[in-house]
Amino acid sequence: MRRIRLWVSYDGTDYHGWQLQPHAKTIEGQLDQAISHLVQAPVHVMGASRTDAGVHAYANVAVFDTTLSMPAEKFAYALNSLLPKDIVIRASEQVDLDWHPRHCDCLKTYQYQIEMGHFVDPMTQRFCYLVHDALDLDRMQEACSYLEGTHDFTSFCAAATIVEDKVRTITGVQILRQPNQTNAGLLLRPNQSFRIQVTGNGFLYNMVRIIAGTLLEVGKGRKKPEDIKDILQAKDRRLAGPTAPAKGLTLCQIVYQ
Amino acid sequence: MRRIRLWVSYDGTDYHGWQLQPHAKTIEGQLDQAISHLVQAPVHVMGASRTDAGVHAYANVAVFDTTLSMPAEKFAYALNSLLPKDIVIRASEQVDLDWHPRHCDCLKTYQYQIEMGHFVDPMTQRFCYLVHDALDLDRMQEACSYLEGTHDFTSFCAAATIVEDKVRTITGVQILRQPNQTNAGLLLRPNQSFRIQVTGNGFLYNMVRIIAGTLLEVGKGRKKPEDIKDILQAKDRRLAGPTAPAKGLTLCQIVYQ
Repeated sequence: MRRIRLWVSYDGTDYHGWQLQPHAKTIEGQLDQAISHLVQAPVHVMGASRTDAGVHAYANVAVFDTTLSMPAEKFAYALNSLLPKDIVIRASEQVDLDWHPRHCDCLKTYQYQIEMGHFVDPMTQRFCYLVHDALDLDRMQEACSYLEGTHDFTSFCAAATIVEDKVRTITGVQILRQPNQTNAGLLLRPNQSFRIQVTGNGFLYNMVRIIAGTLLEVGKGRKKPEDIKDILQAKDRRLAGPTAPAKGLTLCQIVYQ
Repeated sequence: MRRIRLWVSYDGTDYHGWQLQPHAKTIEGQLDQAISHLVQAPVHVMGASRTDAGVHAYANVAVFDTTLSMPAEKFAYALNSLLPKDIVIRASEQVDLDWHPRHCDCLKTYQYQIEMGHFVDPMTQRFCYLVHDALDLDRMQEACSYLEGTHDFTSFCAAATIVEDKVRTITGVQILRQPNQTNAGLLLRPNQSFRIQVTGNGFLYNMVRIIAGTLLEVGKGRKKPEDIKDILQAKDRRLAGPTAPAKGLTLCQIVYQ
């Protein structure tokens, strides 16, 4: 028996999230089906991050065990031929049989993509949240600095969450401005866009989307950058901004220690 | 009665092309339906470019006539609320009643987007053609220069085309390299990508896709840049490269004289 680790990339638009559900199309369900077909036995993957419906990933991680004798790196190619176009295995490799994607220290990086403009861009609408207001990105960057470090993130967590310990460490939050196209071709992106990048050792339910929603309030001038400090201290979900829509969120990277 | 001109942007992935078909979802069909609903009368648009199934547009043009009294620029907002997310009206304006989007001198610009890599990127797969080979972009740029000017493009036209005059003028063909992301964020595009940009006063059926397929042959070393000259002269479709897949093609701009 060997344990195979997969690096999984997906456009989550047409899925009901990662986690297996009996009557809905999910990323986990598609992986289980493709792997079971390949190894000719029922297989169930264990994933690193159970992304919500509509959330995307560049590199989520999943493992499964198999006795199939095939070079570990070939699983990616074999599975890609069985998976739908919006789920792609970027790499496959063998890991120790006791390695578990959720029981390891790791740093996860998420990005939340925002466009500013009057009209949705049909080419990017699956991955971006459109905002009609002009946003002050400098103020948003200033607000980011108050989120970094180890804090109780109760205010930035869906109210119904049952996890007891809501202390997490965010190692970096940044506003990444998207450079306009620099070559001589036609400029095709009608809307200005930027991303909020958040890296940390663990995230509570909806945490990155509430961070994005709160930073947007700062960008619109409805909150001050230094308000973040008070919001954290209050440990009250109602003080933070709204939960930004799932479609703008992408799990970009998981780095295991 | 007024004539309203629409600038239409769409992700063509899930459509059977522009042109109305009785039992298939098309861009024209969706526009007719939305406009007819808005003006409460049967309306049929006239389009500038009847893009193929799977081809995208940033700015195709359509006109329709109506007696509805609404400021011309408001039609874009009203129609966007009725159209699916993958079709967006970028602007609406009034034009003369005898203005027709196909009976005018114009320059059209298309781009064909290509990625080089081992695996499809699920975030860009709707708009790019993936090539596994390493391509020589300098040789492709050299080949472009032979396509510019006024030529008989019979060799670059689907063999079954019934149009008699196959002389067209291409004012520019370029290879546009996509700059890598320059800010400090994670680099999310795993594949190198570039675009072939073609501008001309008119295009034959499949012409841009055959140009892309032929330039790819040059990039792979299977044809020499100067072969383009002979291919044009032969007026024989069999000498050019294969027709590149529709998904990589986007109608970017129409400039009326």
